[in-house]
Amino acid sequence: MKVGVFDSGIGGLTVVKSLLEHRLFEEIIYFGDTARVPYGIKDKTTIIRYAIEAVEFFKNFELDMIIVACNTVSAHALDEMRDVSSCPVIGVVEAGILATANALKSKDANILILGTKATINSKAYEIGLRAEGFNNLQAKATGLFVPMVEEEIYEGEVLEATFRHYFKEILLPDAIILGCTHFPLISKSLQDHFSKKSILIHSGDAIVEYLEREFDFSKKYDEPKLEFFASESPESLRNIAKKWLLI
Amino acid sequence: MKVGVFDSGIGGLTVVKSLLEHRLFEEIIYFGDTARVPYGIKDKTTIIRYAIEAVEFFKNFELDMIIVACNTVSAHALDEMRDVSSCPVIGVVEAGILATANALKSKDANILILGTKATINSKAYEIGLRAEGFNNLQAKATGLFVPMVEEEIYEGEVLEATFRHYFKEILLPDAIILGCTHFPLISKSLQDHFSKKSILIHSGDAIVEYLEREFDFSKKYDEPKLEFFASESPESLRNIAKKWLLI
Repeated sequence: MKVGVFDSGIGGLTVVKSLLEHRLFEEIIYFGDTARVPYGIKDKTTIIRYAIEAVEFFKNFELDMIIVACNTVSAHALDEMRDVSSCPVIGVVEAGILATANALKSKDANILILGTKATINSKAYEIGLRAEGFNNLQAKATGLFVPMVEEEIYEGEVLEATFRHYFKEILLPDAIILGCTHFPLISKSLQDHFSKKSILIHSGDAIVEYLEREFDFSKKYDEPKLEFFASESPESLRNIAKKWLLI
Repeated sequence: MKVGVFDSGIGGLTVVKSLLEHRLFEEIIYFGDTARVPYGIKDKTTIIRYAIEAVEFFKNFELDMIIVACNTVSAHALDEMRDVSSCPVIGVVEAGILATANALKSKDANILILGTKATINSKAYEIGLRAEGFNNLQAKATGLFVPMVEEEIYEGEVLEATFRHYFKEILLPDAIILGCTHFPLISKSLQDHFSKKSILIHSGDAIVEYLEREFDFSKKYDEPKLEFFASESPESLRNIAKKWLLI
């Protein structure tokens, strides 16, 4: 199977990493819209417009599937992408909701949803989790984590001050949804802040779990073909990919 | 005179505020590229492409002048904008350099240049200040201030931790160039961090000083016509303009 992975920037590489670890695809085409990143501060109409352009880009390849690694796009533009795509389009939000439901024993569990402003405003995770019977929900837009991760701040006092700023009214959660591809990179610091008592839900692992349940992935690929495209600085994206994915 | 003010987003409103306070223009047309903000993390080629598109947009109006309120664009794309514009294009970087030179008595003064990654990487301020005889320069990319201001963080522990992170090797400066339109909004906290001993250079005031020296602005306009345009959410930009500019 040949898959296209779409993200607003470099964050979706954390999803590619999970796909590679599980050896699901023969070929992975990554597209990051680095010239217009970040999407998380933008409007629904703009996000939809950019997402449709990504589907058009992927029409250059004969794909079996498009995975939307970006939570912001998954929360706002999945239906519109499906309308113009000739192959299935799968988003990390739906996968994250199901992974959360599977990870928690009790419907009373307290779930903290983190994401960009656009993702949180969409209420996509909340609607999906309520449909699964979870009603003890907290949601918090934590947009500053994105530029902090981009500046390679993964721990330390800036992050800790930001945790206190964002989480001062947040109750200790049973599970935390890392609703942005950048957030797995600060998962250790987040765990420390919440005294390591919360389960973390990672979009990359969630999508693998979702794919393995919905499709036949019995065949494994040890050396998948990888191609990386970006709307700006593709060479910079390729360098980061080499570092993060150890390829 | 009819002026177009261009910025990557809402930050350029701090420059409009200075223009209004000095009643320089009969008509101000503002354009913020809110659909693709921020520019400060992007590449020179992308910044130039977007800046040329802004000139094209302003061709819808018969302007006497374009002011580039965005430091990132001023640092990278001014020549390219001038090539395609039929009216003068003036940038905040040149104005800021001259304002700094005027504000400092000694050429030995230590100047700290703050800006986005793209502005600092361009070395535009450094080159200009050296040409004016200043060689005691420190430059620091402080990109996180932009999303912090956008989240209305103007003071407090997140900002203070970020100051310590960015400024741990910075010597007490005689002057600080606020090389991004967002930075005037945290000028009080910056002053406090540096024990109120540094002169702050503000792009809006610098451009007024520059204009008044280079052009004839003897006529004053008490009720200029204002129009605000944005590539995304113009109504949101107009609301912020009302709040910031008290119009």
